[in-house]
Amino acid sequence: MKTAPVFEDILKARERVSSRIYKTPVLTCRAVDDLCGANLFFKCENFQKAGAFKIRGACNAVFSLTDEDAAKGVATHSSGNHAAALALAASWRSIQSHVVMPENAPEVKVKAVAGYGARITFCKPTLEAREQGLKEVIEATGATFIHPYNDYRVVCGQGTAGLEFCEEISGLDAVVAPVGGGGLLSGTAIAVSSASPSTLVFGAEPKGADDAFRSFHAGRIIPVHDPNTIADGLRTSLGDLTFPIISRLVKEIFTVSERGIIDAMRTIWERMKIIVEPSSAVPLAAVLEHRSGISGKRIGIILSGGNVDLEKLPWCK
Amino acid sequence: MKTAPVFEDILKARERVSSRIYKTPVLTCRAVDDLCGANLFFKCENFQKAGAFKIRGACNAVFSLTDEDAAKGVATHSSGNHAAALALAASWRSIQSHVVMPENAPEVKVKAVAGYGARITFCKPTLEAREQGLKEVIEATGATFIHPYNDYRVVCGQGTAGLEFCEEISGLDAVVAPVGGGGLLSGTAIAVSSASPSTLVFGAEPKGADDAFRSFHAGRIIPVHDPNTIADGLRTSLGDLTFPIISRLVKEIFTVSERGIIDAMRTIWERMKIIVEPSSAVPLAAVLEHRSGISGKRIGIILSGGNVDLEKLPWCK
Repeated sequence: MKTAPVFEDILKARERVSSRIYKTPVLTCRAVDDLCGANLFFKCENFQKAGAFKIRGACNAVFSLTDEDAAKGVATHSSGNHAAALALAASWRSIQSHVVMPENAPEVKVKAVAGYGARITFCKPTLEAREQGLKEVIEATGATFIHPYNDYRVVCGQGTAGLEFCEEISGLDAVVAPVGGGGLLSGTAIAVSSASPSTLVFGAEPKGADDAFRSFHAGRIIPVHDPNTIADGLRTSLGDLTFPIISRLVKEIFTVSERGIIDAMRTIWERMKIIVEPSSAVPLAAVLEHRSGISGKRIGIILSGGNVDLEKLPWCK
Repeated sequence: MKTAPVFEDILKARERVSSRIYKTPVLTCRAVDDLCGANLFFKCENFQKAGAFKIRGACNAVFSLTDEDAAKGVATHSSGNHAAALALAASWRSIQSHVVMPENAPEVKVKAVAGYGARITFCKPTLEAREQGLKEVIEATGATFIHPYNDYRVVCGQGTAGLEFCEEISGLDAVVAPVGGGGLLSGTAIAVSSASPSTLVFGAEPKGADDAFRSFHAGRIIPVHDPNTIADGLRTSLGDLTFPIISRLVKEIFTVSERGIIDAMRTIWERMKIIVEPSSAVPLAAVLEHRSGISGKRIGIILSGGNVDLEKLPWCK
């Protein structure tokens, strides 16, 4: 896919992924509504396969490949949810996945990726080492690189969550998605702007990794160099494919404090009794910290994932 | 209600409570199914109002009262989920609730009960002091005592969860409910044995509070005097109203280890991404520790509640 995707590409992605992934439920919670003074709808990608929305993009990318390309496998250099999702999607197509991971990656993440059948290459924990490791894997195998977000196939797959959301909940005034590299937010924006044109799309990100906010307002990509946030899924910067889509279709980017993220995460755990990772709590934090004009509105929130280390919770000392 | 309830009483309870409580969802999880080698269905009372099934019984009891009795209020001496549920149900009928609590009750529980509008009387942390405190409250106010489980109105209310369960999931081979005082298990047994006669009903309880197991096999109530379990909702002993129902309609009581409870709780948190309290994990622990003959079976599990102190998780040091 060479040109920026349009709504039809999201529909095609849905045809590819819908039989393989969960159509996740949308939950509501009166206690949280009371807290916000608005009607909130939560799209629960924390219940998605491999525990996050990432399987949507990975699955669409893997099943977009020609048989010839697929036979050589897929590769990536993520240590997060994307790596596990790509490995799982590759296993569904019975092809090999290759993941380059820093040698200090948490044991639990290594196990998850290996458990889905990926071949893991360890490297030094630097971006250069990762990219070099990936280059070597690709040269040796001919595998197709599937970037975690800066890839239109991935963007279209992520957009299927927003499409389902609009189909299930009518008349949303807004949808808020977290933004890291922008795969979820750009896909959501394409889906929602066509499926429900009156619904505004917003991004939410940590103040400690506010490249999307700054890029959005500067009109050019301003990467973040020293991200500092508990929301580990949102430490990346926008890509050159995701930024223009966000720039065109997203209404505003909200930034939130670390305190706000932890409080919102705890509110979701305590009131909704569901487990979300810190990145998932960023949109609710945005609603709570930027609430002017939201009274009585119908606001959709994408809970991006639920992969969290239960032994290291931010409110446990 | 003087005689032991029958299925029609559960149906009447449902008419009273259904517009006021949530019809909680039933979730499945392939990873947990793979672990058990069976098809498990989880009735999510952790998502119920006030965070547990207890609102079903409390609501049925409160709305069973005559206007004259209701005007004098309701009273109980629980420090757990029942107290909060009774206070909430009383607030729906706009009547006063009175709760006798030990003076060392956790701040968070006191706040929850007070938040629903209960009038709290503190007492020394002994059973005698609680009963004396309750007696004084009732003498002073004329309030109706609503026992946490040894009350047919409560039993019938709790039974509505099993009724919904059988209506939503057909062909269950078994339903497993946790058993403390036996309100949930006896209500479930009445509902399931009529709504789905081919479905067997099992109880599950901690080895450290195994009065139901011992009573069931002895044919008479053998109370537990020094319960020792993390499942704080299951430390109570069967009542003289719940025991005969369980004795007649339940197939078997399974006991489980503390290690099994914690492991099952963590499995639910990690794999299903939902928050349950330790008592809720006891039925899954039973399935995992007593798995002979369950291969391929359709097993319904009642997740009783999700009220847990997020700062004191059993796997955090």
